[in-house]
Amino acid sequence: MNFSSKLIEEAVNAFAALPGIGRKTALRLVLHLVKQQPEVAEQFAEAIVKMRRNIKECERCHNISDEKRCAICADRHRDQSLVCVVENIRDVMAIESTGQYRGLYHILGGVISPIEGVGPADLNIDSLVQRIQPEGIKEVIMAISPTIEGETTIFYLSKKLRDTGVQVSTIARGISFGGDLEYADELTLGRSIVARVPYKGMSD
Amino acid sequence: MNFSSKLIEEAVNAFAALPGIGRKTALRLVLHLVKQQPEVAEQFAEAIVKMRRNIKECERCHNISDEKRCAICADRHRDQSLVCVVENIRDVMAIESTGQYRGLYHILGGVISPIEGVGPADLNIDSLVQRIQPEGIKEVIMAISPTIEGETTIFYLSKKLRDTGVQVSTIARGISFGGDLEYADELTLGRSIVARVPYKGMSD
Repeated sequence: MNFSSKLIEEAVNAFAALPGIGRKTALRLVLHLVKQQPEVAEQFAEAIVKMRRNIKECERCHNISDEKRCAICADRHRDQSLVCVVENIRDVMAIESTGQYRGLYHILGGVISPIEGVGPADLNIDSLVQRIQPEGIKEVIMAISPTIEGETTIFYLSKKLRDTGVQVSTIARGISFGGDLEYADELTLGRSIVARVPYKGMSD
Repeated sequence: MNFSSKLIEEAVNAFAALPGIGRKTALRLVLHLVKQQPEVAEQFAEAIVKMRRNIKECERCHNISDEKRCAICADRHRDQSLVCVVENIRDVMAIESTGQYRGLYHILGGVISPIEGVGPADLNIDSLVQRIQPEGIKEVIMAISPTIEGETTIFYLSKKLRDTGVQVSTIARGISFGGDLEYADELTLGRSIVARVPYKGMSD
C-alpha cells in the first residue's frame, strides 16, 4: 500500500503489529482516528499506556491486577479454602462471568507441552503447592481444557499436590447444555454415559 | 465480561470503541500488549498520538498529509495538468498502488447523497472548480464509484466544470481483467459491448 504519508504509515504499522490485525484493517482504524477529534486518539493511547504501566501480576494467584493483590484475592467474602486452577487469565474471566464460583484462583500460565517446550518449571506450579498449607486450602478444582496437554498437566499437578492432603477435583465434563447428542463427539458422549448422574428434577 | 481489573476494562473499552473491533477482540489485543514488554505498548500509543497530532489536510487536494501540501502535490515530476477526482483517501491509495497514474488528485470527501443528507456544499467541490484555471489543469478524470450517488456526483461536477473549459473524462468501465463473462452483471456486460474498443494485440 502506498500511503503518501509517513505518519499514517507508522500508525498503520503499529496497529498491524497486533495479532489478527492486517494492514487493511489497520488502515481502516487509523483513518477512523483521523476523522475523529484529536482527543479521541489521545484518550485511546492514554488508556493503553496507563494500563500497561500500572498493570501488575497478583502476588498470590498470578492473575492480572491493578494492585499487589488482585480484586478476587482481596475479596474477603470469597471462599478462601477453595482454589480453581486455570490455564490463563481468559479462563478466569470466563468462569467469573458465570457467576457460579465464589472461591479463589491460581493461574498456571499455560499447560505442560513438550512439543512447545513448556515444562513444569515454566508454569506457576511451585507457588500453587506452597499456597495450600499456609492458606488452609481444602479443595483444588482443576478447570483445565481436556486436551492431551491439559490432562498431562492435571496428572502432574495431582501428583505434586498428593502430599499436601488437599482434595483435588476437576470440572464436570459431558454434553453441553443445549448441545445436540448426535453432534457430540464419541469420546464425550461415551464418557458422559459412563459418568451419568442421578436425575434431580427440574429445580436447579 | 468480568475483568476484575479497572485498567484492563478501560483499555478494552478503548479498543472496542474502534469500528469493527468487538469486546472479545479488544480483550485479545489488550492481553497481547500485557504479555509484551512495556515499551511495545508505549511505542504503539506514541505512533497513534504522533500521527493524530501532526496529520494535516493538504491545502490543495484535501488528501491527508504530513505537511501543508501532500507528497503527491509536492512532487514536481507529476503531471500538473491532470487531476483525478476521488471520493476518499482510500481511493487515492488504491490508484497509487496501481503505479499507472502520474497526475494529481482532488478528494471530494464523499458523494452527493440526498438520503444520507450529503449535498454539494458538504463536499470539496468549490475548491476543485477554483483550482482549474489558476493551476492550468487540462483534464479532470472522474474516478468515482459507478453507483447512483456516484453518477449523480459526476453529472453535477461536469455541469459545474463546463464553464472552465476543462476536459472531463471518467475511468473506463467494463469486465474486470480475469473476470468471467458469465458472472458479470447484465448492465456492465451490455455497456461493455456498446463501448467496445479496437483490439490492439498482445502488447500492453
